[in-house]
Amino acid sequence: MTTWRARYCLNLENLPYQTVYVEIPDIEALAKKIGAAPTGLKPDGVSPKYTIPIIHDHSMGAVVSNSPTIAAYLDKTYPSSGPVLIPAGTMALQLAFTDAVNKAFEHLRVPLFYVDMVVKMNDRTTVYTREKLAGVYSLTAPEGEVREKMWATTKENLGKMNKWFEGSGGDFVMGKEPCFADTVISAFLWLIRSTVGRESEEWKDIAIWNDGRWGKHLDSFKPYEIVA
Amino acid sequence: MTTWRARYCLNLENLPYQTVYVEIPDIEALAKKIGAAPTGLKPDGVSPKYTIPIIHDHSMGAVVSNSPTIAAYLDKTYPSSGPVLIPAGTMALQLAFTDAVNKAFEHLRVPLFYVDMVVKMNDRTTVYTREKLAGVYSLTAPEGEVREKMWATTKENLGKMNKWFEGSGGDFVMGKEPCFADTVISAFLWLIRSTVGRESEEWKDIAIWNDGRWGKHLDSFKPYEIVA
Repeated sequence: MTTWRARYCLNLENLPYQTVYVEIPDIEALAKKIGAAPTGLKPDGVSPKYTIPIIHDHSMGAVVSNSPTIAAYLDKTYPSSGPVLIPAGTMALQLAFTDAVNKAFEHLRVPLFYVDMVVKMNDRTTVYTREKLAGVYSLTAPEGEVREKMWATTKENLGKMNKWFEGSGGDFVMGKEPCFADTVISAFLWLIRSTVGRESEEWKDIAIWNDGRWGKHLDSFKPYEIVA
Repeated sequence: MTTWRARYCLNLENLPYQTVYVEIPDIEALAKKIGAAPTGLKPDGVSPKYTIPIIHDHSMGAVVSNSPTIAAYLDKTYPSSGPVLIPAGTMALQLAFTDAVNKAFEHLRVPLFYVDMVVKMNDRTTVYTREKLAGVYSLTAPEGEVREKMWATTKENLGKMNKWFEGSGGDFVMGKEPCFADTVISAFLWLIRSTVGRESEEWKDIAIWNDGRWGKHLDSFKPYEIVA
């Protein structure tokens, strides 16, 4: 889901790029090879951790990892392209926003996103994820009451997020133009929709919660879904 | 703790005011009497809920409840006083920030803040709180390992908040000037410090975490702690 934030940012800025897919077990070696900075520490608290997305801007000779840092890089390097993703002074607010949104969707990570991947795919990333989660989490899709509870939590959390927009003066987080924070929401909504299916009752439900905010939000990002 | 946000905002804007203390059981009647808007719904999901802080601006004939709304009101009504609390376009970000900070300190609400009140005070607000929590939560101060775990969670959560500041370009959330989001942090830090005591080892510990960010943050708000 994280990679979709960077993709939305690149597309919002209307910048040409080529996607290189990397399996999770290969990220560290690739990151080191191209000189991408680590984005945190491994659970041991000492070793650097490497994650995607990473952009390699050949024209500038720059390698940037982590989606908010990528957004800030695009703002600075291509100021005349598209909306400003991290308006001046808002980086800390955008990062806190990202944490709050991550938390709002955290309960879907294993039972919806990972389970969907484990069921549908069998690449090395999936094998890696399955092995990592096996014995820790149930890797079957929740059904019945458990699934209903999962959506009830989603509805409650989206309801709280909806309140944030009350002071926004537009359909986007900062008003009439999308910014980085909007891509964080869109990326999760996109992932939910692609998991349950655009025509499912589950997505149709979500799309109309909070006066249709979430369906409209994702619709407004449709022009920026191009996978290049 | 919520009232401290509004107090910090008023003091940052250097506006004169007089504090009227209200016991929790009296808030609803007072709010209705002066025409303050409700700030949410009661657990029944239907009845309006009234909370403090509320400001009653006699010079303008305005009554405003809820601290971010109060901040926006002060920006609009007294634009030449002090820093802009909610810079243009950032209300949704500030609200998400507030939710994220509330969550980071949520684990202290009962064992630290409420227990401290219940131990030290006996006004009607305390009696009300004690009755509401009795049987649901333990109302004795945690000790030993439980207390250590409480501080470990606090340290972990403040560590995550510290990362938000990495992109801020100053000691405050939006850079060199404090904004509403900063008052949300200060209000919680103030409450922790006043609960455990300024000279306690516990506060001294917190004050130096993350290169002293939290101690310095609260120090920088000292000029705005005036209780008028």
